[in-house]
Amino acid sequence: MAILALDLGGTKLAAAVLDDSGTILAQEVAALGDRKSTQVGVLVTDLIKKYKHDARFTIDGVGVSVPGISYKKEGTVWAPNIEGWENYPLSNEIRDVAGDIVIDIDNDRACSILGELWVGNAKGCHDAIFLAVGTGIGAGIVSAANIIRGNNDIAGAIGWMALQRPYEKKYIPFGCFEYYASGDGIARLALEVLDQESDYQGLLREYSSPEITAHHIFAAYEKNDVVAIRVIQECIEYWGMASANLVSLFNPEKIIFGGGVFGPATKFIPAIKIEADKWSQPISRTKVTFEPSLLSGNASLYGAGYLVSKILQYK
Amino acid sequence: MAILALDLGGTKLAAAVLDDSGTILAQEVAALGDRKSTQVGVLVTDLIKKYKHDARFTIDGVGVSVPGISYKKEGTVWAPNIEGWENYPLSNEIRDVAGDIVIDIDNDRACSILGELWVGNAKGCHDAIFLAVGTGIGAGIVSAANIIRGNNDIAGAIGWMALQRPYEKKYIPFGCFEYYASGDGIARLALEVLDQESDYQGLLREYSSPEITAHHIFAAYEKNDVVAIRVIQECIEYWGMASANLVSLFNPEKIIFGGGVFGPATKFIPAIKIEADKWSQPISRTKVTFEPSLLSGNASLYGAGYLVSKILQYK
Repeated sequence: MAILALDLGGTKLAAAVLDDSGTILAQEVAALGDRKSTQVGVLVTDLIKKYKHDARFTIDGVGVSVPGISYKKEGTVWAPNIEGWENYPLSNEIRDVAGDIVIDIDNDRACSILGELWVGNAKGCHDAIFLAVGTGIGAGIVSAANIIRGNNDIAGAIGWMALQRPYEKKYIPFGCFEYYASGDGIARLALEVLDQESDYQGLLREYSSPEITAHHIFAAYEKNDVVAIRVIQECIEYWGMASANLVSLFNPEKIIFGGGVFGPATKFIPAIKIEADKWSQPISRTKVTFEPSLLSGNASLYGAGYLVSKILQYK
Repeated sequence: MAILALDLGGTKLAAAVLDDSGTILAQEVAALGDRKSTQVGVLVTDLIKKYKHDARFTIDGVGVSVPGISYKKEGTVWAPNIEGWENYPLSNEIRDVAGDIVIDIDNDRACSILGELWVGNAKGCHDAIFLAVGTGIGAGIVSAANIIRGNNDIAGAIGWMALQRPYEKKYIPFGCFEYYASGDGIARLALEVLDQESDYQGLLREYSSPEITAHHIFAAYEKNDVVAIRVIQECIEYWGMASANLVSLFNPEKIIFGGGVFGPATKFIPAIKIEADKWSQPISRTKVTFEPSLLSGNASLYGAGYLVSKILQYK
């Protein structure tokens, strides 16, 4: 059995051929470049055709991870970072080239936790959550071995989590949690702190919006910069509160921290657990571990494969 | 087909015989009185024996709702308000008297949303949540027609939701959300506000802990008392933020508000929706309605019946 896994991002398409244990047999990455709308669709379908006709493999299924929403009933995809993919008929396009083999499409958050369940840090778990903190924040949630997708396939939108009263208009484009604690949020928070600290003349003073990034704050933190320390400590509070809320609501075995920010924030996972333990349900908090993703940004690629592997198991 | 549904509370045991459409054929309520430990078990099993031998009915299954945790693998029950029910072997005791018929036991939060799905305000939904606000706060969550129970059967502990930075030690026994916005929380919040408002000489001034209750605050609100208005408005914020977080995480079709507080707080549900709409994921918020329970405190009784009805359907 071989599975073709495709992981579509905002800038690239990663592909891997996997066996039924999740071992990668072949892989490649293609840049999206200037492609938009149907051109991205063609990039996807061309890759499928190529591996279907590759004599080395017998492809039994194609799994695809998309950066946005996969509308299961409609078979369409919404991907905000790909022009013309507001309601893109990806399922039909793939079906046309894939023929009779199994296909499945899911969002990158769901695929990420599936990847961790298959070959990563949540292997063997039935209840686990992937907290993806990058430019934005999302959660892939598996409960009793089922992906939580909601009535319109948009569950897991944890970037919108309310963590701080009262409501402020600045949350409108992002949601409260994402406003403060995403990659972009770390930079926003630093600019707010710099505004308040007029006497501060440290490392971060030379940066001003839009140049300042999370990268600068992590670098300054390593040099004991007071503003960076304050920003990171505040983010640890937000990450801790949000994961505490996941612990109390879902009673999971593991929360896996991934995305570009974890990454450099991986070293703060023990501090996040300590913060979360203050807030969360007292029994559930003793039953969960917080861990980094070990799949080097490939969690959603593996998960795209697992989507199909799970279906093939029951055929 | 007839089902015996039992709804065990902290002070009483309600029983109903239901047909497969959820119509009540017979019902009764027994006070627990001074019973504890095995005496409560005997009350339950005596009722089962009685209806099993009632010539009017052929009981095909027994469903039980318990006020606490039903540990599914272990078959035991934790019910903090019943003395000696830390780890009570309810499943075995019921099995001994029920014989070969179907039995199932679940916690009251899960049963409440099941009752609403069967005969209440969430009829026909696959994704719905019961927010139970009484002395404490809990949530019964159904996603894709499955109850979310977590790895140790303690999911839905929404009273522990973190909604307000920074952490305060007063949250330890209750959790942050429950501290402020449960029935007891409303009274706690009123006492905090009274402490701050030394000039206030209104209706609530004559009450002091432990006499003041949510009932007093709701009554004073009706008379435009300024402290009561402030307390209720703050609770609307907490209820709105917590339900917004449910909307963003679960993308449900309905959130049903029940428990003793809804009740008198039912009139605030539209205001809670307005507050929640500020915080929640922008698409999900347009796909959900907030509604009161219409089952007059019997949601968990109906749900106990539905537990078994669902199993019998597939036999």
